[in-house]
Amino acid sequence: MNHERFEQQIAFLLELDKLKNIYRQTLVLHEDRQENDAEHSFHLAIMAAILAEHANEKVDVLHVMKMVLVHDVVEIDAGDTYCYDAKGNEDKLERELKAADRLFALLPEEQEREFRGLWEEFEAKATPEAKFANALDRIQPMLLNYKKGGVSWMKHGISEDQVRNRNIPTVSAGSDMIGKFAEEIIRAAKEEGYLK
Amino acid sequence: MNHERFEQQIAFLLELDKLKNIYRQTLVLHEDRQENDAEHSFHLAIMAAILAEHANEKVDVLHVMKMVLVHDVVEIDAGDTYCYDAKGNEDKLERELKAADRLFALLPEEQEREFRGLWEEFEAKATPEAKFANALDRIQPMLLNYKKGGVSWMKHGISEDQVRNRNIPTVSAGSDMIGKFAEEIIRAAKEEGYLK
Repeated sequence: MNHERFEQQIAFLLELDKLKNIYRQTLVLHEDRQENDAEHSFHLAIMAAILAEHANEKVDVLHVMKMVLVHDVVEIDAGDTYCYDAKGNEDKLERELKAADRLFALLPEEQEREFRGLWEEFEAKATPEAKFANALDRIQPMLLNYKKGGVSWMKHGISEDQVRNRNIPTVSAGSDMIGKFAEEIIRAAKEEGYLK
Repeated sequence: MNHERFEQQIAFLLELDKLKNIYRQTLVLHEDRQENDAEHSFHLAIMAAILAEHANEKVDVLHVMKMVLVHDVVEIDAGDTYCYDAKGNEDKLERELKAADRLFALLPEEQEREFRGLWEEFEAKATPEAKFANALDRIQPMLLNYKKGGVSWMKHGISEDQVRNRNIPTVSAGSDMIGKFAEEIIRAAKEEGYLK
């Protein structure tokens, strides 16, 4: 029984409690408040399980689920950067790399390698699993924003083209089916006046 | 491309947004508020990934993760019943069965069978995966309660024996290692005066 190893694992898991306090621009559907990273990651993980059949390439579902569960861990130190905030996105990578150095190092060494590797894989968007995980990461807030009456898009004056250019290539790279669904959402959101 | 099937999957995933509004007795560590079911399920899923090596029997990690992600879905209709509330627990099963009938039926038929099956498996606590998932479901709130200064235990006047009798057999059935950790938490919580 390796006690130090177990304690490292528990320290990492306790640190992740902070994801419950990092608020995103997206609102939850049934309360008047922003969604946090833990809730968002929960949603992506169950989406991965339910929607895996729609990935363009066959994906290892466990791999996708682990990836989406840690994809926002760096925001514990680096904060959530709104995707349409050009200025905030300038130094995002640097802040997140520093955060990854600290956070994944809480884990035992080979788990640090595994989970930091999953985060890097997600960011690189190159493997079938990363492409699918990124597709989910984009469609989930689009779907919630649309169902919530476009509040978050309207608040920031986001246009149809901004949403399309930012999301459609990434979603379609992971899943043509979900990409078509994203197009439907944008069309409907425009019609409803949620997008400029 | 089966559109009806995809729409059923999205309807289920949207319904799960309600887990973000079902509040548990446990508090989150870094804000003064209760944890919700989506956050709790997120935490169990990443715990499953990180701690699987400590399960008493070898477990299929994907199976455990899917199970913990849906283990509280029935609370969307049945509500969260505090584990030390004897009265609320009397009709819990009946309320939850009715909830399972409605909620899992949102999914396409074979996914309804799979995910309802995972919930039933979790409740029956018989397979290695269910035993491990139940161990996580017990240790997570114990750990948060302890780290939060025992607020939730003290509020309800919970005793050392209540926590031990309710949790140790279940945790140890899934993992001796985590069972010993649970004993340590109870001992420390008693010493701190968090438990009667």
